[in-house]
Amino acid sequence: MKPIAEQLAIIRRGTVDVLPDEELVAKLRAGRPLRIKLGADPSAPDLHLGHAVVLNKLREFQDLGHLVIFLIGDFTGMIGDPTGKSETRKPLTREQVSANAATYQQQVFKILNRERTEVRFNSEWMDRMGAAEMVRLCSHYTVARMLERDDFARRYAEQRPIGMHELLYPLIQGYDSVVLRADIEVGGTDQRFNLLVGRELQKAHNQPPQVVLTLPLLEGTDGEQKMSKSLRNAIGIADPPEEVFGRLMSISDALMLRYYELLTSENVAVLRAQMESGRLHPMEAKKRLAEIVVARFSSAATALQERERFERRFQRRELPEDIPTFEWAEVPSAAVPLPRVMTLSGMASSMSEARRLIRQGAVRVNGRRIDDVAFGVEASDEAVIVQVGARRIQAVRFPVLKNTSQRG
Amino acid sequence: MKPIAEQLAIIRRGTVDVLPDEELVAKLRAGRPLRIKLGADPSAPDLHLGHAVVLNKLREFQDLGHLVIFLIGDFTGMIGDPTGKSETRKPLTREQVSANAATYQQQVFKILNRERTEVRFNSEWMDRMGAAEMVRLCSHYTVARMLERDDFARRYAEQRPIGMHELLYPLIQGYDSVVLRADIEVGGTDQRFNLLVGRELQKAHNQPPQVVLTLPLLEGTDGEQKMSKSLRNAIGIADPPEEVFGRLMSISDALMLRYYELLTSENVAVLRAQMESGRLHPMEAKKRLAEIVVARFSSAATALQERERFERRFQRRELPEDIPTFEWAEVPSAAVPLPRVMTLSGMASSMSEARRLIRQGAVRVNGRRIDDVAFGVEASDEAVIVQVGARRIQAVRFPVLKNTSQRG
Repeated sequence: MKPIAEQLAIIRRGTVDVLPDEELVAKLRAGRPLRIKLGADPSAPDLHLGHAVVLNKLREFQDLGHLVIFLIGDFTGMIGDPTGKSETRKPLTREQVSANAATYQQQVFKILNRERTEVRFNSEWMDRMGAAEMVRLCSHYTVARMLERDDFARRYAEQRPIGMHELLYPLIQGYDSVVLRADIEVGGTDQRFNLLVGRELQKAHNQPPQVVLTLPLLEGTDGEQKMSKSLRNAIGIADPPEEVFGRLMSISDALMLRYYELLTSENVAVLRAQMESGRLHPMEAKKRLAEIVVARFSSAATALQERERFERRFQRRELPEDIPTFEWAEVPSAAVPLPRVMTLSGMASSMSEARRLIRQGAVRVNGRRIDDVAFGVEASDEAVIVQVGARRIQAVRFPVLKNTSQRG
Repeated sequence: MKPIAEQLAIIRRGTVDVLPDEELVAKLRAGRPLRIKLGADPSAPDLHLGHAVVLNKLREFQDLGHLVIFLIGDFTGMIGDPTGKSETRKPLTREQVSANAATYQQQVFKILNRERTEVRFNSEWMDRMGAAEMVRLCSHYTVARMLERDDFARRYAEQRPIGMHELLYPLIQGYDSVVLRADIEVGGTDQRFNLLVGRELQKAHNQPPQVVLTLPLLEGTDGEQKMSKSLRNAIGIADPPEEVFGRLMSISDALMLRYYELLTSENVAVLRAQMESGRLHPMEAKKRLAEIVVARFSSAATALQERERFERRFQRRELPEDIPTFEWAEVPSAAVPLPRVMTLSGMASSMSEARRLIRQGAVRVNGRRIDDVAFGVEASDEAVIVQVGARRIQAVRFPVLKNTSQRG
């Protein structure tokens, strides 16, 4: 194992909290592989770059010789929330949980080292736990402390209902740490409270308490809100490499540096200095970031291929060679409204979808972004290139002008 | 079964709440024997007159043809409170619970009709309940509503700790009503909240909710605080008949009417009128009350016997015939301090106990209350009668004067 100072530097990098830091040092001093826990919710198995921040940290632990316990919280997932109130989770069937768990693992092993990962399900012990044990578990925590959790405190203050069962989830999560004898638990800053509950419960069970290590929540591609699938600002770990590459190329320069910090082990200060001095073009830096990320989730070869594809399409303004072509059947008497071109050529399933795409700024005609739904496509001898988003592209050819010139 | 109007009059008598009254009427209209639940805590098996108020009401239900479900909450008793904080209950062993349950039954069947009583233990279903079911149970109630319970609200406001498990107990108690399909639950007014939780949980389980019927908390013999063993103002159901009779004779006239109302089916208005018009002496009314209560817990014959004993001892100032006698061995040179007389004759186990009893006003010499610990007992030809409390009595005979007179 590496010297402790070196390990500490790697572990602390990018973290928000290490609670308490001196216990982390003491645990590393023991010189044995530590048990690093990560809890995962099986109800939302699609991981994105926000999750990758935490997974990268775990990978760093593995590279330092430690063991990751990947805990899938299937127990609570299978209970769900029978009250049917807002903010609820529907109970998952055992099959759904298994399917989600498989998806999860497929994704996490794009980052984690499979050899140094123990995958566990908390139904293993929670299914066997009786109500009496549950009551006993509850006795280790007070109501007031539980209601200090940010979201509970807010909802309680605003008199929005908090189901009693919701107070149990942090305890169950914390109890997992007891069973797993976790040395360290890693999570986003939004998980700080829950991870500290684990620490308390370990103490109550006469175990050395886990060190709590939190990492920042990654902003989404909008650069403002936390990355979240529901906010449509997320880049998924399992998304096609082309999409991952393209979306990373679309982020702001400031966000790029943030992503560098949280998703790579590059030296951000050096990058910033190089860009400020003009030695590194931000576009080049962004391509490197996209390459690093795609390489992690796919392969270095794929990353290079995506870079080249991107450069061809969006920078050299070259079109792919195998571009599909839609032949216009009849001579249009005037410019054809763009939504009509899109629906007839199959690039939109309906006029309303076409209009929506145009309004969203997703549509280009001959490389120029069009946001006017009334835009008319003029017939021309040359093919008209219509693009929707980064990947749907089509050449539209008109018979019109040729006919006219023959006539004339 | 009696007509509904008649049943209602009996059931409503002395109650504080009938929630909701119209559902009680509807349930009675069904014409079937109703299931009347009473929950009991096995950690304190000594019942007193305060409990008798509720038990009397149950007995009335039985006399009307309904069924009583006597539920012993052994599950929570066996969990106890492992945090060791104040206001805790120590977990009971299964043996202690069984012993307490036996004591309980012995006592309740002084009032209840055994034929129309079903005794149940909630460990029957709670021991089988899993943690998942517990979480589901919790989902039927919100934290805010639970914290509305008086004692929780007070402790929360005063920032005194409330263990999370304490919030589970009302739910478990309420769930008992679900399992038992209770039609009505009876309890003291301090149980109103818990009984209403049962109602809610039955609704959540698609059952007709129980009617909640609360009865006043009986004041102790001091006439001020709620009757409670720990406040030493309680008359126990299992106390010796002589003591029950004597202590009832010691209460105030006002409290006597309260006890009549809550512990008997006598018409209190009539009694009050008779006393005010001078047709009934309060002392006679009190003796009747004591007779009624003793007759219920023992037998009519015992009650009569206790009445006669009381009259002999405290009213006709007669002494029991079989009064034990202590013969003083040597001639005392002077008056003997009363504590010494008491210890030597075995009426107190030590000088300090004797002094305490005297200071408490529990000791009489020849019928006169003595509260001076320095009081000296003069030798006399006649036996000196020393009484401690109502029941310990002894004659002390001195050889002194006889010897002196022989000498003189």
